[in-house]
Amino acid sequence: MKGQTIDSIIDAALGEDMPQGDITSENIIPVDSRSRAIIVAKENGILAGIDVARRVFEKIDPEVEFDREKKDGQKFSEDEKLARLQGSSISLLKGERTALNFLQRMSGIATTTGIFVQALEGTETKILDTRKTTPGLRGLEKYAVKMGGGQNHRQNLSEMVLIKDNHLKLVGSISEAVKRAKEGIAPGIKVEVEATCLAEVQEAVRSGADMVMLDNMPIDKMKEVVSWVKGKVPLEVSGAVTLEKIKEIASLGIEFISVGSLTHSYKSVDMSMEFLEEL
Amino acid sequence: MKGQTIDSIIDAALGEDMPQGDITSENIIPVDSRSRAIIVAKENGILAGIDVARRVFEKIDPEVEFDREKKDGQKFSEDEKLARLQGSSISLLKGERTALNFLQRMSGIATTTGIFVQALEGTETKILDTRKTTPGLRGLEKYAVKMGGGQNHRQNLSEMVLIKDNHLKLVGSISEAVKRAKEGIAPGIKVEVEATCLAEVQEAVRSGADMVMLDNMPIDKMKEVVSWVKGKVPLEVSGAVTLEKIKEIASLGIEFISVGSLTHSYKSVDMSMEFLEEL
Amino acid sequence: MKGQTIDSIIDAALGEDMPQGDITSENIIPVDSRSRAIIVAKENGILAGIDVARRVFEKIDPEVEFDREKKDGQKFSEDEKLARLQGSSISLLKGERTALNFLQRMSGIATTTGIFVQALEGTETKILDTRKTTPGLRGLEKYAVKMGGGQNHRQNLSEMVLIKDNHLKLVGSISEAVKRAKEGIAPGIKVEVEATCLAEVQEAVRSGADMVMLDNMPIDKMKEVVSWVKGKVPLEVSGAVTLEKIKEIASLGIEFISVGSLTHSYKSVDMSMEFLEEL
Amino acid sequence: MKGQTIDSIIDAALGEDMPQGDITSENIIPVDSRSRAIIVAKENGILAGIDVARRVFEKIDPEVEFDREKKDGQKFSEDEKLARLQGSSISLLKGERTALNFLQRMSGIATTTGIFVQALEGTETKILDTRKTTPGLRGLEKYAVKMGGGQNHRQNLSEMVLIKDNHLKLVGSISEAVKRAKEGIAPGIKVEVEATCLAEVQEAVRSGADMVMLDNMPIDKMKEVVSWVKGKVPLEVSGAVTLEKIKEIASLGIEFISVGSLTHSYKSVDMSMEFLEEL
Amino acid sequence: MKGQTIDSIIDAALGEDMPQGDITSENIIPVDSRSRAIIVAKENGILAGIDVARRVFEKIDPEVEFDREKKDGQKFSEDEKLARLQGSSISLLKGERTALNFLQRMSGIATTTGIFVQALEGTETKILDTRKTTPGLRGLEKYAVKMGGGQNHRQNLSEMVLIKDNHLKLVGSISEAVKRAKEGIAPGIKVEVEATCLAEVQEAVRSGADMVMLDNMPIDKMKEVVSWVKGKVPLEVSGAVTLEKIKEIASLGIEFISVGSLTHSYKSVDMSMEFLEEL
Amino acid sequence: MKGQTIDSIIDAALGEDMPQGDITSENIIPVDSRSRAIIVAKENGILAGIDVARRVFEKIDPEVEFDREKKDGQKFSEDEKLARLQGSSISLLKGERTALNFLQRMSGIATTTGIFVQALEGTETKILDTRKTTPGLRGLEKYAVKMGGGQNHRQNLSEMVLIKDNHLKLVGSISEAVKRAKEGIAPGIKVEVEATCLAEVQEAVRSGADMVMLDNMPIDKMKEVVSWVKGKVPLEVSGAVTLEKIKEIASLGIEFISVGSLTHSYKSVDMSMEFLEEL
Repeated sequence: MKGQTIDSIIDAALGEDMPQGDITSENIIPVDSRSRAIIVAKENGILAGIDVARRVFEKIDPEVEFDREKKDGQKFSEDEKLARLQGSSISLLKGERTALNFLQRMSGIATTTGIFVQALEGTETKILDTRKTTPGLRGLEKYAVKMGGGQNHRQNLSEMVLIKDNHLKLVGSISEAVKRAKEGIAPGIKVEVEATCLAEVQEAVRSGADMVMLDNMPIDKMKEVVSWVKGKVPLEVSGAVTLEKIKEIASLGIEFISVGSLTHSYKSVDMSMEFLEEL
Repeated sequence: MKGQTIDSIIDAALGEDMPQGDITSENIIPVDSRSRAIIVAKENGILAGIDVARRVFEKIDPEVEFDREKKDGQKFSEDEKLARLQGSSISLLKGERTALNFLQRMSGIATTTGIFVQALEGTETKILDTRKTTPGLRGLEKYAVKMGGGQNHRQNLSEMVLIKDNHLKLVGSISEAVKRAKEGIAPGIKVEVEATCLAEVQEAVRSGADMVMLDNMPIDKMKEVVSWVKGKVPLEVSGAVTLEKIKEIASLGIEFISVGSLTHSYKSVDMSMEFLEEL
Repeated sequence: MKGQTIDSIIDAALGEDMPQGDITSENIIPVDSRSRAIIVAKENGILAGIDVARRVFEKIDPEVEFDREKKDGQKFSEDEKLARLQGSSISLLKGERTALNFLQRMSGIATTTGIFVQALEGTETKILDTRKTTPGLRGLEKYAVKMGGGQNHRQNLSEMVLIKDNHLKLVGSISEAVKRAKEGIAPGIKVEVEATCLAEVQEAVRSGADMVMLDNMPIDKMKEVVSWVKGKVPLEVSGAVTLEKIKEIASLGIEFISVGSLTHSYKSVDMSMEFLEEL
Repeated sequence: MKGQTIDSIIDAALGEDMPQGDITSENIIPVDSRSRAIIVAKENGILAGIDVARRVFEKIDPEVEFDREKKDGQKFSEDEKLARLQGSSISLLKGERTALNFLQRMSGIATTTGIFVQALEGTETKILDTRKTTPGLRGLEKYAVKMGGGQNHRQNLSEMVLIKDNHLKLVGSISEAVKRAKEGIAPGIKVEVEATCLAEVQEAVRSGADMVMLDNMPIDKMKEVVSWVKGKVPLEVSGAVTLEKIKEIASLGIEFISVGSLTHSYKSVDMSMEFLEEL
Repeated sequence: MKGQTIDSIIDAALGEDMPQGDITSENIIPVDSRSRAIIVAKENGILAGIDVARRVFEKIDPEVEFDREKKDGQKFSEDEKLARLQGSSISLLKGERTALNFLQRMSGIATTTGIFVQALEGTETKILDTRKTTPGLRGLEKYAVKMGGGQNHRQNLSEMVLIKDNHLKLVGSISEAVKRAKEGIAPGIKVEVEATCLAEVQEAVRSGADMVMLDNMPIDKMKEVVSWVKGKVPLEVSGAVTLEKIKEIASLGIEFISVGSLTHSYKSVDMSMEFLEEL
Repeated sequence: MKGQTIDSIIDAALGEDMPQGDITSENIIPVDSRSRAIIVAKENGILAGIDVARRVFEKIDPEVEFDREKKDGQKFSEDEKLARLQGSSISLLKGERTALNFLQRMSGIATTTGIFVQALEGTETKILDTRKTTPGLRGLEKYAVKMGGGQNHRQNLSEMVLIKDNHLKLVGSISEAVKRAKEGIAPGIKVEVEATCLAEVQEAVRSGADMVMLDNMPIDKMKEVVSWVKGKVPLEVSGAVTLEKIKEIASLGIEFISVGSLTHSYKSVDMSMEFLEEL
């Protein structure tokens, strides 16, 4: 994600939290008070967003020092220090909540992704994210998925053709849809088709689809599909895949499993910022 | 929340999802194809964001008709239709995911809030939200809390003075902190103080605090506080309050309970958009 | 006021003054000419906006040195130097008018405020500003009021409830209006009511208003009100209060007097920028 | 001034007045309440900004009806109605202060300009404004000067060359400065020179200046200048010209008198918005 | 290209042409003058940008009527009418140059593309554009290429992997570069490799490249490549391909020829706007 | 042109080329790889835009070193080095195309302008540009004209009055048009009139026009005009002036010749960026 875009997201976040400054800190803390503080984890997880948190403070006050104790992608345990801060007490207080709002959410996504990735250990299958991301934060959330060990699916509707059930209702047939897509797109673009049974998978592959998504398909049918496809194109399994079923699906030899809940229903990791001492 | 702000949030969301349009729909669906579709719930919940969803489609194509079947704040059941849409098939396909990304998250917040509010039925206690909201979406998330029956706490750091533990470490005493705050702020601003024991509550009230927050206080101590305060100022309980403990806390006569998880760890309500027929 | 917001105001001001640069200075002054200059007062006053003036030059050319001789809030006399500048002659010429346009207006507000504040010396009464500020410059103007020794009333319509005559015409009664307000707002928000007679003041206080504004009330009636209210809530007097009448009003024991003319009809303080020598 | 620019000025003004809406009106006035109201003058003046006021309400709510009773440039008397409004009561209340903040300031400028213009009746001399305008509002203020019968001087530093005392200190001679300017600028640009005595006027005219400004020159010297110039170039008189002296200066046959106070120290015209009845 | 983006490009263009309006038309044409006008071609060509031209006028004045006589992609001859306009004379005059600036450039690109496309008639080879587009106008220029019968290559650096000579110097081998790319990218992204000889083409194809670009390769070598590749992947020829050589290259069975000059050195088609009569 | 404006043009250009980064370079080049590279000319020309190119890299990565070998306005020959770069390999690759897109176009304009200017050597006549510039890039293109030795005509419709044929059709007479213009404009604005015969030139000069444009006039008529005007006002010749005819026109004693093709149909100068070695 571009620095410029992250900056504008941070600006918006600070803008909504301080339309007229922080009237508590500005009125009760002396302007020249300086403090040391830490950001500390209250539960285990995988870190994502530490540089976004750093940037929040830098935006508020370029003189705040922010030293990471962990990098994005690393595991941390309850009570572990994630960063040390030093600078104007007022600046630290102003950035606290906004920085944590980014860091706790992004680490929440990375942590959950990590659990799915671990469940697939020993297989070749990769975890993909989806477009079910928080409006305005897709770049940060997809980055967090990567930090948790997942891989990113397409960023947006402009990047890849994905022909889904609603498209097929309107076009009539998979082969016609793939044909139209191939005529219109730039030569660098791949085409994926959503299929619900072996016949659809076969039609997609024969029409020249570069990848096929198996949508809410029972395990038995998946097996049929895998044995017919034999690596001709990569396969993606989608649709409410839980941790329980994921290992079984992966063992079929599926290349990708996409998990919407990574980004549509994540849980913030508990963290806090603690003032250690005034300087 | 101002229409203008919501528009810029929607613009950002559409911008990140379609930097160069929707290459699937634009290439395979005829420009003049028109369809009817519905948005339908896949589980029970309380609705929030239906007008944001409507506005998403309006931004893409002012000629899409969007008729709500439910209003924000109303309950819905699994399989219930939430809205009917009609218009250009391409426009409907373009807006589908972005509209649902707003609607499912906001309804998720409203639904969870509703569960807390229901747990307090028969008491005078009110559920408050916090500033632990998604960066850039605070206005929408606080609106969703209201739709679920909750009440909003302060919008941001400029709206109210809230003196917390980190402030007190720096200032030294509650009374000094309240005094400084009162000197600096406009006459229309209230002052709340976070307290961890009866002595602190007493100091806060005597210093002229307009409201006191009991932070992670055991039930026994809360009782002491309530019996001393006797309504002199409203009390807010904060700190990982679960559904299990909430009724007991409310029964003490606490005015407000604030719940961070309403917005920091919500779960999207499952919904989908289904094309009914081409026109 | 946030640095970011001030920057965008300055950008707009420089943009309207130099859509295509300064064709006089750029064409007749050598690019490498450097000068020393001063900003000097042409009449007595109280300073406000010196850092905005500094920022104007910094925006045009970060290498201009700008040393204040006075700080905001300090008094200055005719012919006193307010700042010393040094740097590219072209940059100094480009910033001259825009910097003075901010500085003269803001100092004008501070100076007038100071006159009102001085008139109240020896009383407890405070001068408040209003929302009758120049569109786009409210933050700077309210800051200037503070520099002149005044206190800020609410920043905007989102910060405090103020029930005025037009609201009351529509709601019917003060008590009903206060009741509705209290139900809807966040717990940190105060409610002020405009009253024109003792009965209205009484209704406001009994309904739970946190503050009462006496609108264009004769001195006699104010006395009645003060003797009934006895500090139960703070009182604000509003409505064309002149310097002549202000001391008498204050002596009644009124907490606040708000003066719209501080910002709606101010007079710029005369200042100029003078080039001392080329370097 | 471009509609787009005015819109962004209005957006900024509404943004600073309602970062989170109007919590008074929204909480106490029913959403479906509709009212009739008027904007009424409380003193005599010349109108400017009535369409800006109309646009403020249109931005808040396109369904508010706003019918002007007077057009910009027309005179009005105390108690005269300037506009009639009808629409959502909440929308009317939200726009009231911002609309008046524009209208009262702009009419203040027009009214003062009108007084200067009237003083020149029977002469050919024209009143010019200056660049001493409120940052961000130059377009609106220069428009108001026109509505009061004045003429606009240059809009900004990019539009015309004006060689002033600080430039001359750096360049050394008027003739050199004019020469450099003429070489660098586009052929459509005029060159004006500030002069303090006849010799300087002569040097300016001989160097090819298109216009000369007489800066703080005594009446006697002006006479000398006029009798030498004999219409070769138009003359502008500048520098604290008061209403008292203006007729005498004009009678010398000066083409233009520029008056900084029109925009740097104006007084708002008193107006108010009154609710007539609920519909 | 998104309507929103085109609007912001038009806004910028109008902003640079009218920072303070059109002082000629506004001062000499009566506000209520209405005219009929046409846009007419002064030479033959293929149309592109007619709706951008229409939008320019719509932005200036929504009441201007603009009726196209030709659609984008259609051929036109010298003296043919391209559009009829009717509306405020001032609005028509304001939009004239900006509308033509878009229309003449875009039609210039479409016309040149059409000449290349025609030269390939009877072959399967397609003309591609490149990223050598005018900064800020890529979307419009690539659209114009399409209108001329060409096909778009990748929009930008985020859409497809294209490994070029500078990349290969740094990575060392084609196979290593392709391997790294495939590991990092989303599954929907294709990989193209630039090759200068058969051995490189073979390495690219064997490494899994989805497409190969032959850079400045002599015809003889191209033949070798085509006969080895035999359709395994599509081939693109690039590098100063002139109209003279293009048919011969196409006849080898190359899928794509990319032509940078379509957008880096186009010639505006001569057009003008003529006022027919005042209404 | 203001640095701020150039920055926003560069931001737009980088934004359209890297909405999601450069997926080729980011995936195959190590983050810590550093290189040396040069920008080299592939044909002769005059340089313009080298600092824009430098700024492109600075925007991407402030640590890229960019040393110009030539300055804007200087001539260069085929194979000459224009700049040396050193820094992160990925940053160099990201900026390559965008920097060249600016540099090749701007140098193309400067080079063509230089050819026209050279053709006029020995005369007093100056080459002017027009408003036929690329939307959004007028400032950069007019700057390039200057670098090639040309002079800029008016920047935009707000800067100078230019009464053209379409205006005259609506107003009826040149003298009426000039009269209206002079009444309405600020005193610093010049008035130019387009004329097609001697009679019109005479009417323009007698009405007080400051400059006259001879539109598509045959050489014979130009002679008549020049001998009548005798320097009373400067003359501009416009209308498809080719290199062949230009010397003859200049020899008549015409002050300005304006050439639309300088900016409406330029050709990019061929340049490339070459990686020398990894560091």
